[in-house]
Amino acid sequence: MSYSFSDKAGSSLPRDDDEDDDNTLKIMVATDCHVGYAEKDGIRHSDSLNTFEEILQQAKKNKVDMILLGGDLFHENKPSRKALHGVMALIRKYCMGDRPVQIQFLSDQSLNFAANPFPVVNYEDPNINVEIPVFSIHGNHDDPAGLGNLCALDILSVSGLVNYFGKCNSLESIDVTPLLIQKGSTRLSLYGIGSIRDERMHRIFVSRKIRFYQPKDEDNPWFHLLVLHQNRTKHGETNYIPEQFLPDFLDLVLWGHEHECKIDPAWNDRQHFFVSQPGSSIATSLCQGESVQKHICLLKVRGKALKCTKIRLETVRPFYMRDICLQDTDLNPGHAGIKDKVEAYCSERVEGLISLAEDEHTGNPKQPLLPLIRLRVDYSGGFETFNVNRFGQKFVNRVANTKDIILFHRRKLQPEKRDV
Amino acid sequence: MSYSFSDKAGSSLPRDDDEDDDNTLKIMVATDCHVGYAEKDGIRHSDSLNTFEEILQQAKKNKVDMILLGGDLFHENKPSRKALHGVMALIRKYCMGDRPVQIQFLSDQSLNFAANPFPVVNYEDPNINVEIPVFSIHGNHDDPAGLGNLCALDILSVSGLVNYFGKCNSLESIDVTPLLIQKGSTRLSLYGIGSIRDERMHRIFVSRKIRFYQPKDEDNPWFHLLVLHQNRTKHGETNYIPEQFLPDFLDLVLWGHEHECKIDPAWNDRQHFFVSQPGSSIATSLCQGESVQKHICLLKVRGKALKCTKIRLETVRPFYMRDICLQDTDLNPGHAGIKDKVEAYCSERVEGLISLAEDEHTGNPKQPLLPLIRLRVDYSGGFETFNVNRFGQKFVNRVANTKDIILFHRRKLQPEKRDV
Ligand SMILES: [Mn+2]
Ligand SMILES: [Mn+2]
Ligand SMILES: [Mn+2]
Ligand SMILES: [Mn+2]
Repeated sequence: MSYSFSDKAGSSLPRDDDEDDDNTLKIMVATDCHVGYAEKDGIRHSDSLNTFEEILQQAKKNKVDMILLGGDLFHENKPSRKALHGVMALIRKYCMGDRPVQIQFLSDQSLNFAANPFPVVNYEDPNINVEIPVFSIHGNHDDPAGLGNLCALDILSVSGLVNYFGKCNSLESIDVTPLLIQKGSTRLSLYGIGSIRDERMHRIFVSRKIRFYQPKDEDNPWFHLLVLHQNRTKHGETNYIPEQFLPDFLDLVLWGHEHECKIDPAWNDRQHFFVSQPGSSIATSLCQGESVQKHICLLKVRGKALKCTKIRLETVRPFYMRDICLQDTDLNPGHAGIKDKVEAYCSERVEGLISLAEDEHTGNPKQPLLPLIRLRVDYSGGFETFNVNRFGQKFVNRVANTKDIILFHRRKLQPEKRDV
Repeated sequence: MSYSFSDKAGSSLPRDDDEDDDNTLKIMVATDCHVGYAEKDGIRHSDSLNTFEEILQQAKKNKVDMILLGGDLFHENKPSRKALHGVMALIRKYCMGDRPVQIQFLSDQSLNFAANPFPVVNYEDPNINVEIPVFSIHGNHDDPAGLGNLCALDILSVSGLVNYFGKCNSLESIDVTPLLIQKGSTRLSLYGIGSIRDERMHRIFVSRKIRFYQPKDEDNPWFHLLVLHQNRTKHGETNYIPEQFLPDFLDLVLWGHEHECKIDPAWNDRQHFFVSQPGSSIATSLCQGESVQKHICLLKVRGKALKCTKIRLETVRPFYMRDICLQDTDLNPGHAGIKDKVEAYCSERVEGLISLAEDEHTGNPKQPLLPLIRLRVDYSGGFETFNVNRFGQKFVNRVANTKDIILFHRRKLQPEKRDV
């Protein structure tokens, strides 16, 4: 599916003029790939890398000018060698090559990449032959820590595979210096803010300790794009970033960290910018938001106009989540053998979802067959629980997460645990 | 200093003909750099990386054709990001570039580098501009382990920085397939065996489960070079590898793992090959062997002849070790205040070594000033020990290892603990 949007001035990217490639910046946008998630699981071990590969394949197929990642590329702060090695191998495979890079880098690279011992955008390094430059900020899962305050992206950066930006070296204030990128007549001003604790970020905004440096040359318009990795959903007074904190000169905000795919740009009428929340490329918890279909976005920018084409990720393991309230069924807690009947009822529902998963399989040979299934069972009203582990045993080789298919609860649902 | 050796046939590399570069393979040989060793120490934190940098600088300055490392490049199996990042940055800095590589690779790379997803020698990859290819086996400190059986060298390998070879995937038998490398008329057959437990390696040799594949074409002579990383010193019946286990067609054995520098090739008259033991580039324990001056070696091979030029490592932290037997001094355990007198005597000896370190400083601005000092004090014969920590306090800012300058013992020395 493809959407076309007006820019702030009301002009829009002409639908039929997609082929003006020389002036259209094409960016493959993804976030929260969480490579390494469940890598020790006997079934799901390769899920995260599989889908990361799909993303790179889409980038290559669509001949994008660059890839932009929004943080949490790795699930662990210290990724296993397998995860690190896997990501490096894939980027080397898909992003190195002879097709010429068509974007020009205009800003001071020693400022943009100050944290890197080679403060140069990788495709300009004469010793590395880059075809698709990857740009990334860090997330909360892969943030800098330890000796030298380094993160996994620093390893990718020093090896010339990724252009890591948005690293902040102060705890008190943030200077956001944009990467200035040009393709033909289109000029992108790319702001990145790597993840920091939401409370701290909130305080920095409130106390106006964050400065966004805009390019001085305003003869030609700049498309202002911010990528950040913070809570967008309010979890408390100060542990999220309200959209109105963000400067209104922005054209588009790419919001990492939130795993639910809300990738279609939403217009913020107060701030006058679009917000796109790509969501994660793998479910890292069995909650509602993660069961929404996963997408990445082919972002086209021309002048001040943008166009966002959703691309469904076909290799994501199917995940179905259903809420069951036993009181609302025909089951009666007073009946003989009710415990078995409840269990049979749940089995039936799981069977239904297994069938659904078969029907809805994308056909992509790399999409796993075994689905993730989660039934949240409200057993209030005198029902008993049954043994969840034993229940799962019935679905070995048919469901990926046999150990935690069922989640029993009574009436009021606790806020969902999420690992974003 | 430079040595010239006869080859097996009695011919030698002509001393005055060093300039026949086109047919002379120049290899910078180093081993056991142990990057990351003591990286959390307030004083010694940068020692290992400093000297690793010196090695790369020597390689560049001497315009070598390749660098050969003998294992234990990293001190920890899971190096800190700082150690990994530091090594990658240095190799990218010194080993990438435009000077053309003058060696040809003749053997089947998919066999030599089977463990690598990019089974190609790095300087032949069109996407990476390598000036000095680095070849390395793994040691016991940085051996493959965990998910995917990967090691830190696999990370360097997948990023195109190092050609990692000698990885064995079987516990029962070893096939050693040489890297065949040619420069002009000189042809090198390079065998590598990554570290495995000495007992297992010993058993594999005894049971003849190891096969060395020699190049078939014997019209021109091959120079047969083996690099391995095992105990050379006998610590028990089966936990070392006797030299006579190694095939006698070899011309030179580079022995990693042993930290004492015995780099001058020693002729094994039974096996008819030379053995060079470069030793580590940093002292990882305060034992006698580590106090021997550290060197790397510029190895030149022409035809079947070799020449080994020792290069002193100038950035290594000075380390002095002395044995003191109190009974052999003028000190008398019966005298009043003898404890203080012993301590004063030891202080004097330390002062002497501090002076010696000043006198013997290489002048290299990157050589640390504060020496490592170890006095092994035999206090048998009725002497008392004193507080070693308090003693060290006197030498803060003058000695690097104030906490363990003194090692008290009685008469018979225990076998030295070493961490190789
Ligand atoms: Mn996150
Ligand atoms: Mn995340
Ligand atoms: Mn070793
Ligand atoms: Mn060692």
